[in-house]
Amino acid sequence: MNLSNTRALCFDIFGTVVDPRTNIVHEARELGAAKGLNINWDEFVNAWDALYLPMIEQISMVDQAPWISMDVLLRRNLIQVLQAFNITQFTEAEITHLNQSWHRLDPWPDCVPGITRLKQKYILATLSNGSMAQMISIAKRAGLPWDVILGAEPTRAYKPHPEAYLRTATMLGLMPEQCMLVACHPSDLRAARAQGYQTAYIARSFESGSHKHHEIITEKDFDFVTDSMENLADLLGC
Amino acid sequence: MNLSNTRALCFDIFGTVVDPRTNIVHEARELGAAKGLNINWDEFVNAWDALYLPMIEQISMVDQAPWISMDVLLRRNLIQVLQAFNITQFTEAEITHLNQSWHRLDPWPDCVPGITRLKQKYILATLSNGSMAQMISIAKRAGLPWDVILGAEPTRAYKPHPEAYLRTATMLGLMPEQCMLVACHPSDLRAARAQGYQTAYIARSFESGSHKHHEIITEKDFDFVTDSMENLADLLGC
Repeated sequence: MNLSNTRALCFDIFGTVVDPRTNIVHEARELGAAKGLNINWDEFVNAWDALYLPMIEQISMVDQAPWISMDVLLRRNLIQVLQAFNITQFTEAEITHLNQSWHRLDPWPDCVPGITRLKQKYILATLSNGSMAQMISIAKRAGLPWDVILGAEPTRAYKPHPEAYLRTATMLGLMPEQCMLVACHPSDLRAARAQGYQTAYIARSFESGSHKHHEIITEKDFDFVTDSMENLADLLGC
Repeated sequence: MNLSNTRALCFDIFGTVVDPRTNIVHEARELGAAKGLNINWDEFVNAWDALYLPMIEQISMVDQAPWISMDVLLRRNLIQVLQAFNITQFTEAEITHLNQSWHRLDPWPDCVPGITRLKQKYILATLSNGSMAQMISIAKRAGLPWDVILGAEPTRAYKPHPEAYLRTATMLGLMPEQCMLVACHPSDLRAARAQGYQTAYIARSFESGSHKHHEIITEKDFDFVTDSMENLADLLGC
């Protein structure tokens, strides 16, 4: 394929760049242990995660006014899961702290070295449904060198609404054809491609949750198919 | 003053971080020389610059739909100035290239070292009326290590509209009192302070244009009054 037009790489974050489960399960388990609770925290986080897709389908995905950020949406879901698991021992401050565990996710080991290499040649943007505050916290904690935080909150459109991709390109001052989505979720990549984006699929294996998929992806499915950011840097000549 | 709450430094860009004239005059002069034009390019850029404030007063400063970015607004003004100077020799591509000289502005020498020090302790955001594309180009070219590009385009509010400051804080996940505007324009700092921001004034001397001011600023006028980002880093203990 012709890469000479590619100017920006736009990254999905949860799953693609950061491990979306391990630290959240860990923090929930620690908090539960401090309260003497006997809960399967893997199941708890699965249940929390499982509310994500129905919630995204329910909300107005574009131009909500006022904008409801992912922090607020996740907290609503957390309250619901706490009720479902009959957990009443957490204070408001503890619930907020647990919700903020989404700000403290660790990148997969290939990400900081691979993404740092990619920065030499491309504009690097986040294109996540996460809040700007989540993106800033994660990047600062991990040392992820984004040029710009884009995606749902600045564009006021949640993926997979077409405007999430189109307005991200506009804010970059680019045509969609000059942008490449980098993601581990085939549905996200297909939605981006429908708006003109190039696509790079990064295979990630992580435990079940709303992000899971069971599709078999082959090299023909996307412009690039690989399994780490370092390999993507190789493929893009960085 | 109590700095313990300060989490984010929000930077004005044109004038405060980058020299807003030198490269634009240089590029206009080069382009004019190639066309054999006899124009005072300092005056030309002054005239271009002088259209900025009336334009900002004319436009709808908040929630324009569709959003009109600073790139588009500056290009409209450029067309007007070209007409006023009876310059008809520039092609569309040359006009676009000259308008893009706003993407190629150089930082003052204290900025990269000072701002890099400030990043260790604070979230660093741009809070400019410039477009996201301008901010990205300037930062990438100069090596300015912003955590996030905020300001007019993502908030859909041009300074000094209160929402430019308020929504920037919201997008950071912070209260305005946790944010400090860093700027060389007293009017910008006063508008930010009216919304609860802390303020740091950076004295800059540059030639006339819309950014000029003739006020005498004393240490009492803002929370911090200094003349470089390195001195600001000293004052903030970075």
